[in-house]
Formats: sequence, structure tokens, C-alpha cells
Amino acid sequence: METQTILIKNTSIIDREVKKGSVLIENDKIVEITSDNTPTNADEVINGEGKCLIPGLVNTHTHLSMSLMRGLADDLPLDTWLNDHIWPVEANLEGEHCYVGALLSALEMIKSGTTTCNDMYFFMDDVARALDEAGMRGVICHGMIDLFDEEKRKAEFKETLRIIEKCHNTADGRIQVSLGPHTPYTCSPELLNWVRKKADEKGLRIHIHVSETEKEVDDSLNERMKRPFEYLEDLKFLGPDVLAAHSVWLSGAEIALIKANKVKLSHNPLSNMKLASGISPVSDLMANGVCVSLGTDGAASNNNLDLFQEMKMSSLLQKVRKLDPMVMPANKVLEMATINGAAALGMENEIGSIKVGKKADLVLVDMKAPHLTPYRNPVSHLVYSTEGADVSTVICNGNILMKEREVLVLDEAEVMARAENAAQDLLSRN
Amino acid sequence: METQTILIKNTSIIDREVKKGSVLIENDKIVEITSDNTPTNADEVINGEGKCLIPGLVNTHTHLSMSLMRGLADDLPLDTWLNDHIWPVEANLEGEHCYVGALLSALEMIKSGTTTCNDMYFFMDDVARALDEAGMRGVICHGMIDLFDEEKRKAEFKETLRIIEKCHNTADGRIQVSLGPHTPYTCSPELLNWVRKKADEKGLRIHIHVSETEKEVDDSLNERMKRPFEYLEDLKFLGPDVLAAHSVWLSGAEIALIKANKVKLSHNPLSNMKLASGISPVSDLMANGVCVSLGTDGAASNNNLDLFQEMKMSSLLQKVRKLDPMVMPANKVLEMATINGAAALGMENEIGSIKVGKKADLVLVDMKAPHLTPYRNPVSHLVYSTEGADVSTVICNGNILMKEREVLVLDEAEVMARAENAAQDLLSRN
Ligand SMILES: [Zn+2]
Ligand SMILES: [Zn+2]
Repeated sequence: METQTILIKNTSIIDREVKKGSVLIENDKIVEITSDNTPTNADEVINGEGKCLIPGLVNTHTHLSMSLMRGLADDLPLDTWLNDHIWPVEANLEGEHCYVGALLSALEMIKSGTTTCNDMYFFMDDVARALDEAGMRGVICHGMIDLFDEEKRKAEFKETLRIIEKCHNTADGRIQVSLGPHTPYTCSPELLNWVRKKADEKGLRIHIHVSETEKEVDDSLNERMKRPFEYLEDLKFLGPDVLAAHSVWLSGAEIALIKANKVKLSHNPLSNMKLASGISPVSDLMANGVCVSLGTDGAASNNNLDLFQEMKMSSLLQKVRKLDPMVMPANKVLEMATINGAAALGMENEIGSIKVGKKADLVLVDMKAPHLTPYRNPVSHLVYSTEGADVSTVICNGNILMKEREVLVLDEAEVMARAENAAQDLLSRN
Repeated sequence: METQTILIKNTSIIDREVKKGSVLIENDKIVEITSDNTPTNADEVINGEGKCLIPGLVNTHTHLSMSLMRGLADDLPLDTWLNDHIWPVEANLEGEHCYVGALLSALEMIKSGTTTCNDMYFFMDDVARALDEAGMRGVICHGMIDLFDEEKRKAEFKETLRIIEKCHNTADGRIQVSLGPHTPYTCSPELLNWVRKKADEKGLRIHIHVSETEKEVDDSLNERMKRPFEYLEDLKFLGPDVLAAHSVWLSGAEIALIKANKVKLSHNPLSNMKLASGISPVSDLMANGVCVSLGTDGAASNNNLDLFQEMKMSSLLQKVRKLDPMVMPANKVLEMATINGAAALGMENEIGSIKVGKKADLVLVDMKAPHLTPYRNPVSHLVYSTEGADVSTVICNGNILMKEREVLVLDEAEVMARAENAAQDLLSRN
């Protein structure tokens, strides 16, 4: 492979502190960061003036293909939403729908500055194909649900192993596969034990939903007199390779278990609000040193995939929960969407910050806009004032995915047209 | 004046229900709405294909000039924020700062689909000038604070009367003046009584902050054993011409008073969250038939003026407050930002919906974007998926303020440059 270099010059580099300078990319990596604005020539030079350079955002909980169900049903009780709207549609899903839905989501993520996602769904080889084509980085897992049935369990194991075999460590290492037990209440202990064993055996990570709703906790207490994280601890399931999504309803003892086992969390504030699940005690978790990252959940319950919204709302929601404006300051929130996201996926040495030797996953945000004027405190602006549409240029693994809002890796109009057709086809099957 | 016509054709008209059709504007008014896509010729034809036409959004609580303090200080206790950051800067404000800050805010509002605002601040003739130049509609008031001091009170009366004299019913009727007692705790009963008298005498509306924080309610209870709305009722201050901003901490008795007096409210969810003020019981207020509209408050506590964010968050915040996903459905939220906003300002016969005979305050939102695909339920998309940057074309009083995101009434780069300078000048004075 020939050496390919990109120089991003004369920009504000945001990485804990803010510094003026330039970043040189060689192939897939950051090789030089200087305060001098013209350190060298490069094959491609991007002028970062008036822009902020941030690490590519990391969305640690998605169901990409569900973008086809965006706006399908809102403002409904969770049971009605799932039973009457989401599940009947999902029953008709085929690989092509999942591929097109994931393409649409990749397009939306690129346009709002996300370079890495952590996805759980079905037909994951089709999702992997979409992420690969979009040039993104992703950890994907087949969502396993056995409902305590042995036949189903075997089928889930088979599909999981197929996806690992086919997709793990593909696309120049941009696609990784993890293990995806859906929840502690839709998966048997046998399934969960198998997942823990495979994770240890193969060094794979685990992605699971835990304690999204109060009902889930109540049911767990009724059934086994244990809360969900206590149950998982009993199974010796918890560990630093586990990423638990939502984790809204937590006791103090569960927070201690999460901390002791170094479990990583994906906080999904907009989904938790829209589905009326509750407010996760994120500021308390973070005060305890727990690694909390940010996720959007699927577009059907959000209804978009914009991590700038999650950043702003994760801060504002904790402030109003605690009636304390000091909790979740802007710099901590930006870390949640970047380095914490990387750590939640075990990638903190590769992505999540702007450092020499790390992968070149970088995003330029245009700060020349009325809603970002005056330009004073860039981190505050990024968290409290920016919207996805302010993202200008997106680089992942050293490849330019979007330049000055023109997506280079996908045909935007074509993807939207295909998504409209796929959504129509999917709904017509009911 | 020569007749000037604009035809917006082939669009999705959103006004309670969604219908395909065209809207004809003659001078400042909507004169025809047809389901036929080409009813007539016009001086200017705007193709609304792939777009939604909504009423211009109404922001019922702003401090426009505070955009100069955007990002100045965040994540601080309210006292520190006000005492150490906002008030020292405000002490140095001059008319030119307020003018430039209001211009910047007008630009931001236009770019995110707001055509009317309700502003309280200082140097309001300068704010009026900015709104006039921007082609927007505004109700403005001098924010009166006497701190129970007679000299201050006299000065506030004088300034209020000056602004009424100079600005009321100017700019082709686009600028109205109201009375702006700041709060029940920074204004004496004498001031409040004068306001009620002047409102009755001159038919002016009243704009006031009430019960933003729990401390305000506690202080009121300690001082006079009455909650703020009870105190205002005792003064016979309340009435259908009163718009109370925030109204976060309300007892059941106060909700009854608000309802009985037909007081209008401006809900400011993002400001209330960011300053950790609390969550207003909006869904309960609306279930009681109270007219609740939406406002952003100043950019210093938000940190932007995008009513699409307020719409989404007003719904999501109530859902999570009540743990009920059915409260505050999308169509109700869109009404809050449009017809309720109009009613809150006494303008429900003029603006806030798309009807023949009403003022042509109209906004086209581009629905062709990845995060708005598939295009299925436009009202859901407008509330849950749209961001300010999706606004394409903005018309106020029959004049095109922005067309395909090009602002026609202001020089965007110049306004931003002036705002940077004004902000720097203001801060350098400390
Ligand atoms: Zn999920
Ligand atoms: Zn205010």
C-alpha cells in the first residue's frame, strides 16, 4: 500500500485542552501534531480554519437497521409500541432491509460526526457490509434471544458463530464482532453462561441491555429476589469486557457491582426519555469512576442518531435530576462521547482522542455560524450549542468520508431512495 | 403599495392535519389555500416539493441581546453564574451591544424557523431596531427591576413609557410593546400595581418571570406565607394578558389560579434543565386547559435559540417526568410552538396557524435528509427528528427572510463579525 498523507492545518484541536495547530495523517494513523500551522506537505491539505477538530464520536448503543422504522409509531405505551408496531415489522425483516437501514444510519451518523458505532441487531453480516461500504468503524453483534428455549438457543449460538466467523476483524480491522445477549430476561442462564465462556475463550466483548425499565427490575425481584446486575454477578457474567446499555434503574449495591467489575455503560438519554424509561443516575456513576459512554439506541425511539443531541441532553438531564448545574460539565460530556466510548469498546488505545499513533478518526466542526457566535469556549459550544449539521468533514481510519458536508463514500440521494423503498416494502408485508 | 404575491406550491401543509397543496400570499397575508398544486401565477413561485410548510415558530421568552454572552460561563451554581459572570457584564451594556446581540439572535432565529419572539431586556428600542431590520415580528418589553426602591421604580416607569411611545405598533405593526416587570421578588407591589393599571389603560400585555426556582418559592413563603402566584393573585395582577415565563414550581392551588385567570405560560425546558431549576408540570397544566407555549430564554442559559430543540425536549422531559410515553404527543408539541405561542401573545387571530386571512408567517422545512428518512409521519419528524438547520425558507409578514438557507434580510458574515467585536468590547470592560 502506498503511503497516503492528509494534513489538517490551522485548526483548534480539542483533546482535553484546546490548542491551535495541525494534524498530519499517514495512511490510517495520526503521525504528527504540531502547533506550527504548516509542518509539511501532504497529498491532501484540509484547511481547518474557523473549525474545531474533535475525535470521531463513538455511539456505543445502536440498532442501525431500525432507522427504517423512524416515526413509525410514537407517543405510545412501551408494550403497544413493541407488540403492535415494532415486533410485527421486525418479524418480516430480511437481510436486504437490514443492509439498507444500516446504510441510511451510516449516512446519518457520518453527517453528524460519528465514526464508530456499537450495533446489536439481526442479519449482522448485512450490517457489516453497510458499515464497510460507508467506511465506518463498528463493533457488531447478533442480538441473541432464546426465551429460555433450547432450540432457539442453539439457533442463536449458530448465528452468532457464523457472524464471528464471517465478519470479525474484517474491513481492514474496522469491523469487530462482539457477543450480544439481548437482556437478562430474554436470555436463559445457559445462554448467558455460554456468552461468558465464549468471551473468555475468544477475547470477544459483550453487549447487553440491562435495567432499561423499572418493570424489568421489578420482574427480576419478583422472580428471583435479585436485581438484574445482582443476578448477572451471581452468574459470574460481569467483567470489564461487558458493555451494558441503558442501566437506568440501579441500586447502590448495583453501582458498586458495576464499579467492582469494571463494567462499561452506554447511557441513552433521549431513548430513555422518549420511551419514558427513566433517568439513569449517570452523575453518581461517574463520581464513582464508572466508565459511562453515550448511545442513541435505535432511531425508532429517539428519533435520530445525532450524538450532539445526546451530549447536550446527558448534561442537562443530570443537572435537572440533581438540581445542580455543576454536574456533568461540558468537558466531561465530550469525553463520554469520545474517549469513554472508545474505552467502552476496548479501543481506548486506538481511537477516542487525538494522539500520535492513534487511528485517524477525526471530525471537523464548523464554528462559523450564528448559533456558535461569539466563538469563546469551544468545548461549551460543542456540547451546548452545536448541532449535527455543523459537522463539516469526517475522517475514519485515515479515509475522508465527508468533506465540507459532501459525503464521498455513499451516494446520499440513492441511499435515501433505497431506504424509502425498503421501508415501504417492509411495512407492506404486514 | 403595490400588490405582491408569493405562491408556495406543491408542499405538505401542516396545520393540525397534514394536507398536500399550495398557499398563495398577497402582501402580508395568506389569501388562498388549495389542494390544487398550481392555482394561479404569482410574482414569486416557491416550489415546496419534498418540504413541509409550517406556521412560523413563536418563541415566547427570550433575552435576545444575551447571545453575546453565549458560552461565557457554564456548569456553575446560579448565584455564581449571575453574580460573577452575567450581572457584571450586563452592568456595562450599552445600546449598541443590545442592538448587535439582538441582530445575532434574529439571524439565529430566522435560520431555525422562528418568526416571532417575545423579548424582555434593556435598551429595547435598539432591540426593536434589530428585529425590524431582520424583518421579524416581536413583542418587546423593558425589563423592570426596582428592588423596592422608589427612585429606581420611577426610572423604570420612565423607560417603559419611552419604549412604548417610541416602539409600540411600529414596523408595519410587526413590533409591539408589552410591560415587563422582571419578577415578583425584584419588583415592588407598587411597580406591579402600576403595571396592571397601565396594562388595563393601554391594552398592553404583561411579560413576567414567575417561580423559576424552588428558592424563589421558598423565599416567597418565608416572607409572606404565600407562593408567588398566590401573591400575584392577591395583588389582582393576574389575568389573560399575563404571560408568565418558567413557572416551574407550582402547587395545585397555583395551577388552579393560572387556569381561572387564563394566565398564559412560557415553558423553557432547556434553560430550566441547564440552570438546574427544575421540571415544570407542563403535561398537568395542559391537561387543565392552560395555554402553554415554548421559549428558549437567553442564549447564555441554553445555549442556543432553536425551538426545534425545545419542542423535542418539552415532550421528552414530560414523558420521563411522568414515566408515561403517551403524554405530550408530537401534534400537541407543535401547537405549543405555533398557535399556543400566538395565543400567549394575544395574536392567535393573526399568526400561529396556516389559515386564509392570517399573516403570512410561514416556514418551509426540508424533509429530504437522512435523519428525516423514511418520510412517513411529518409531525413526528418535525418534533422528534428535525433540527434547526433543516429549515429551508422563512417568510414573515409576507416577506421572504431566508430562501433555501440564504438569509436575504441580513448580511450573515457581517452580523457575526459585529457580534464577535461587540462581545469582545463588552468583556473588555470588566
Ligand atoms: Zn437498545
Ligand atoms: Zn428569562
